[in-house]
Amino acid sequence: MTNRVHNFNAGPAVLPLEVLKEVQAELLDYKEEGLSVMEMSHRSSTFSQIINDAKAMVKKLMKVGDEYEVLFLQGGASSQFYMIPLNLCTEGKVANYLNTGAWSTKAIKEAKKIGKEVHVASSSEDKEFTYIPKTFKLSENPAYLHYTSNNTIRGTEFHFIPEVPEDVPLICDMSSNFFSRPMDFSKFDLIYGGAQKNIGPAGATLVVIKRTLLEKMNTGLPTMMDYNSHVAQESLYNTPPCFSIYVIGKVLHWLDENGGLTAIERHNIEKAAYVYDVIDSSDFYIGTVVPEDRSRMNIPFRLPSPELEKKFIAEAAAVGMIGLKGHKSVGGCRASVYNSLPMESAKALAEFMRDFEKNNS
Amino acid sequence: MTNRVHNFNAGPAVLPLEVLKEVQAELLDYKEEGLSVMEMSHRSSTFSQIINDAKAMVKKLMKVGDEYEVLFLQGGASSQFYMIPLNLCTEGKVANYLNTGAWSTKAIKEAKKIGKEVHVASSSEDKEFTYIPKTFKLSENPAYLHYTSNNTIRGTEFHFIPEVPEDVPLICDMSSNFFSRPMDFSKFDLIYGGAQKNIGPAGATLVVIKRTLLEKMNTGLPTMMDYNSHVAQESLYNTPPCFSIYVIGKVLHWLDENGGLTAIERHNIEKAAYVYDVIDSSDFYIGTVVPEDRSRMNIPFRLPSPELEKKFIAEAAAVGMIGLKGHKSVGGCRASVYNSLPMESAKALAEFMRDFEKNNS
Repeated sequence: MTNRVHNFNAGPAVLPLEVLKEVQAELLDYKEEGLSVMEMSHRSSTFSQIINDAKAMVKKLMKVGDEYEVLFLQGGASSQFYMIPLNLCTEGKVANYLNTGAWSTKAIKEAKKIGKEVHVASSSEDKEFTYIPKTFKLSENPAYLHYTSNNTIRGTEFHFIPEVPEDVPLICDMSSNFFSRPMDFSKFDLIYGGAQKNIGPAGATLVVIKRTLLEKMNTGLPTMMDYNSHVAQESLYNTPPCFSIYVIGKVLHWLDENGGLTAIERHNIEKAAYVYDVIDSSDFYIGTVVPEDRSRMNIPFRLPSPELEKKFIAEAAAVGMIGLKGHKSVGGCRASVYNSLPMESAKALAEFMRDFEKNNS
Repeated sequence: MTNRVHNFNAGPAVLPLEVLKEVQAELLDYKEEGLSVMEMSHRSSTFSQIINDAKAMVKKLMKVGDEYEVLFLQGGASSQFYMIPLNLCTEGKVANYLNTGAWSTKAIKEAKKIGKEVHVASSSEDKEFTYIPKTFKLSENPAYLHYTSNNTIRGTEFHFIPEVPEDVPLICDMSSNFFSRPMDFSKFDLIYGGAQKNIGPAGATLVVIKRTLLEKMNTGLPTMMDYNSHVAQESLYNTPPCFSIYVIGKVLHWLDENGGLTAIERHNIEKAAYVYDVIDSSDFYIGTVVPEDRSRMNIPFRLPSPELEKKFIAEAAAVGMIGLKGHKSVGGCRASVYNSLPMESAKALAEFMRDFEKNNS
């Protein structure tokens, strides 16, 4: 694989080469069972082992116990935006949100769409979501406080966990920084994320729910939208996204074998620093985020002109660095440097950025 | 792959070996792009080609044109059970169902759960779903008529398309006989199915909708539950199950290259006949379905005792024939013989069945 690109995609994103090689080796014949994981019954003992092992790895890496349920659902974070208020906004309760970017805005929109009362407890919309608000004010009777721990498009990240009163469920969309750092996960009542950024291929949504929250949910919901039905059936109410779950399990083992969240956090800090250092030591590259709130996962930056940005992206692609275009809603450039991105890719990008600056300023 | 099992799983199920080999070969590096399909942006030009090609193959095999929209969604048929009445039961309309087994029963249940008026236009529940009702009676103001074209658990199949008045949308869950035979697909307004039986790995739901139906749908729905929002975004409202879609595309090409639906129908009739012939020429094996309504996909049968059934399943597994246990809700044995099951597997099973009968009667 000498021709593997440096993959800065925002998601779906780079996966560990070791994991892909294992998947490839097992593709026709999983553990000499004579069939692919894609061809296995989701109720077979072999697949049970695969899904239960993946769930166990989630808990091991998060250091949480049986007070949490682990679900692998479908429909991405976008479906959670709907399921959360549907399940948790019981009579008279108000859905509280911290609005820090496009994804929290969408979460808010879905809660409103189904007629739930919504309170925006704080927002950084006043400065185009370029920072993380440090304070917030809850409504009366909060059903929960929801926030997005890392904002993929804007490149901001919460480097703290918002403090809520004990009786207010804390809910977090961790799609883009899941498993990228140790956190006190016991503070959360519901954590979720699409797999396709930090933990696996698209098509599976990881949901981790505190058991005590399950008792507070609405009943009589459409079965597929009902967390309690998925918990009761251990993610096997219907056929789950088996292959994605299998790959997720391997990615989590890869994380664990490489030192878990403590080690990956060090790795991620170092990796992001390669790129931020170029930005900070240059007047050519302009970071778009308040430095203290910078994401370790997604690094947006601007060049002196849209023409130079276009040239930068094209020349980078020509030397095997892909995914550097900023999200269409904000423009510019963005380097996503998730867990699985090798250190060499970040180094190569930093070097390329320095060379490009030299040749174009 | 000398050790590949004969895979009679009901779903997820066997896939064409040729397809698996291609997927394996491309797993680390798709078309020399230096990354896996799992690592590609769903908005990249390469993935656009993959998903658009898969959609085109759906239309080609079904022989339908641009009057239909092809969607790849998530959540399986179970999510469609909810989405269909949510989108289509407009004010004063009644959801009509043919009830032919566990899955249509679930579809009915979900429509009722969200408070829609439901009319069961016919049912074979009186004889434990062992036949297909040939007539039905619609309610006043039908929103649609929904039926399940093949009943995976009971092993019955519609060998005709129910006739409805032109203004009544015809909706069909084809999860377990999708693409197994030519049909006049132009008679349907909405066809859907989980991929994991006949067309690919779990995690993607194929939905084919007639454009004229889109105009009749409710508005203001949760975005992920709204067919119109998925159509407007061409299945890319959020990250789709990319890898599953990629494999589905390959399976559909495999079908096309092997003669399309006409050829696979002949193949499937011949394949199922191997097993049905054993049942019909024996007093040891007992078919559970009215012969004229037998499924070509799922063949349930009983042996003289539960002990013999257990022995049959165990001895079959010992010689590399898996997935022969009947669904837990009905017991007995079941051989699923989907498109991708090689003829040799059906022959081998028939031979095994004859030998087992000889040795145990």
